[in-house]
Amino acid sequence: MEPASTEGQSDPPVRGVADRVVGVLGGGQLGKMLCQAASQMGIKVAILDPLKDCPANSVCHEHVVGSFNDGVAVREFAKRCDVLTVEIEHVDAVALEKLEKQGVVCEPKASAITIIQDKYRQKGHFSKFGIPMADFVEVDTLSSIEKAGEIFGYPLMVKSKRLAYDGRGNAVAHDKNELSSVVSSLGGFEHGLYVERWTPFAKELSVIVARSRDGCTVCYPVVETIHKDNICHLVEAPAQIPEKMKKLATSVAEKAIKSLEGAGVFAVELFLTNDNQVLLNEVAPRPHNSGHHTIEACYTSQYEQHLRAILGLPLGDPAMKAPAAIMYNILGEDEGDSGFVLAHQLIKRALNIPGASVHWYAKPGWFSPHT
Amino acid sequence: MEPASTEGQSDPPVRGVADRVVGVLGGGQLGKMLCQAASQMGIKVAILDPLKDCPANSVCHEHVVGSFNDGVAVREFAKRCDVLTVEIEHVDAVALEKLEKQGVVCEPKASAITIIQDKYRQKGHFSKFGIPMADFVEVDTLSSIEKAGEIFGYPLMVKSKRLAYDGRGNAVAHDKNELSSVVSSLGGFEHGLYVERWTPFAKELSVIVARSRDGCTVCYPVVETIHKDNICHLVEAPAQIPEKMKKLATSVAEKAIKSLEGAGVFAVELFLTNDNQVLLNEVAPRPHNSGHHTIEACYTSQYEQHLRAILGLPLGDPAMKAPAAIMYNILGEDEGDSGFVLAHQLIKRALNIPGASVHWYAKPGWFSPHT
Repeated sequence: MEPASTEGQSDPPVRGVADRVVGVLGGGQLGKMLCQAASQMGIKVAILDPLKDCPANSVCHEHVVGSFNDGVAVREFAKRCDVLTVEIEHVDAVALEKLEKQGVVCEPKASAITIIQDKYRQKGHFSKFGIPMADFVEVDTLSSIEKAGEIFGYPLMVKSKRLAYDGRGNAVAHDKNELSSVVSSLGGFEHGLYVERWTPFAKELSVIVARSRDGCTVCYPVVETIHKDNICHLVEAPAQIPEKMKKLATSVAEKAIKSLEGAGVFAVELFLTNDNQVLLNEVAPRPHNSGHHTIEACYTSQYEQHLRAILGLPLGDPAMKAPAAIMYNILGEDEGDSGFVLAHQLIKRALNIPGASVHWYAKPGWFSPHT
Repeated sequence: MEPASTEGQSDPPVRGVADRVVGVLGGGQLGKMLCQAASQMGIKVAILDPLKDCPANSVCHEHVVGSFNDGVAVREFAKRCDVLTVEIEHVDAVALEKLEKQGVVCEPKASAITIIQDKYRQKGHFSKFGIPMADFVEVDTLSSIEKAGEIFGYPLMVKSKRLAYDGRGNAVAHDKNELSSVVSSLGGFEHGLYVERWTPFAKELSVIVARSRDGCTVCYPVVETIHKDNICHLVEAPAQIPEKMKKLATSVAEKAIKSLEGAGVFAVELFLTNDNQVLLNEVAPRPHNSGHHTIEACYTSQYEQHLRAILGLPLGDPAMKAPAAIMYNILGEDEGDSGFVLAHQLIKRALNIPGASVHWYAKPGWFSPHT
């Protein structure tokens, strides 16, 4: 037995597994889960997020209220951190680049974030490295998008270069006549647009790749992601695809991440096409919602892995300790109280499933039953 | 992708998996781990602990600085909580009893804590329920302890009734001549002493039993605990003993807990004797360090289970999701800086073991590699 009353009275200060403060730009659910992993390891996390009640607020060591898009705020924030990282890529990457030149350790590197936060630039980068992707081209006038439509055919995927997530910033033109309205819906050409050849995929896959500060990489088992209204709805781990396709997906993901600089976990979203091609969709330079299940189902969660990676600790084992896992994302926030009631009914059902764990974002919850 | 900047802006307040504040008496490492489990589920935990920098401080929703032994402090603390629980049994149980009469929900019940916090009373209670234990008798004079020595033989285990943990409050008399010095070392008869017949055990076992508010119980797989200097040093899960002995240990543990009132997890420490008897050693009315491994190795950790139990949520699956696990407790605090250096060397080695996780108490760390 160990009573609390005598705990913490010993002289040496709390030092944790690594005696450095991790600064995280962003305090959403991914930041919260990073903080939870850090708490277990006694690692201190400071969060920069504009929202006072952001999800990570309740569990971080320190929350600096400010914008991760504001270079001055990021610079000030960096002073209290030993290593800077992100839980969102839409941060002031120019500020990070300047900080790096001043010797601040950013993991992953500002260059990786700069490339990734502009999806068109990201595609250009990966195509230089021979990563298979759907054809794409920048469009900046009606005639250029019409030309692209002629070449790629319809439906045509039109995308914003920046600040696109959860399907926001994506729109589909089903024929030439829809082009101008689709362009308007995305904020017009001045917003920065590109188009992609429509990819009729059999499955969407995701691979979390972790890279250590000394450049070693380990990959989590390939998962299948199922989206609903462009939001990740279900993750099946491992993906039910042939071993050969798993290997191909993993090698494409690893190759993509090796072309970027810096340590941490990266999520690589992929399409598996009907003719067994694996095409890169997009990359995130951080833990990802397609990796939530790693908390319960893998020896090392993506969050612990990210901390290990950016702190220069040895990478952990990404293997699954359960034969299979499902992550099911419950949403309710947009439906007001009735959404909450529904979410709570689903949560109650989840709590009755042997082996299921429920996680709560602090926006609504999600849970990951696994068997 | 989901940027942090838009999180938490939705109108409904954060409600979590259960919309009640859990008040925990004590903020040591067990309280900290309860808070970590609560954080994942979006459950708010308030802590009452006298130490400003107690382990749980960094991760609880609210920390009230005060003594869990002070009835007034406990009463005030209860006002902000929907359910009261403990992470240490040495709390003001009289205050809890009064609060219960006023309608405050305490889980487990004050009666269970009252029985358990006095080890002599605990033994008396369990013997009434036919739980097998080593013979014991109260001693309050030199002649009574000498008489006990004659009956039980030597070595003789002498124990304090109260505030005993990690071997503190226990002492061994090897013969009659040592009795008076052993009694003095335990603070004298006025401190409240009893003796136990020496139990030459083959193994020490532990079973975590969870009971829901509606009285259902589930038991975690039996583990073996190995103590070093009376502190839990190693936990092997599952215990390497015959199935028959596992069943016996589980049934003794379950029977013991069914004799106590209230919901939550309870730890039952047992001796397995050379002649295959299972004897109850002692019970804790809370999560226990012999159950740390449940975080990584079981579908539902003892901490999540405790929260589910006391909040009236369905109990989770206690089964192991890994075939085996080891918890190894690293201590370093008593050895000053050199202890820390040693602990950090051990932690570094642990981080290199595939499948190992490191947890940090905020006093020094412990880690639980499992394979």
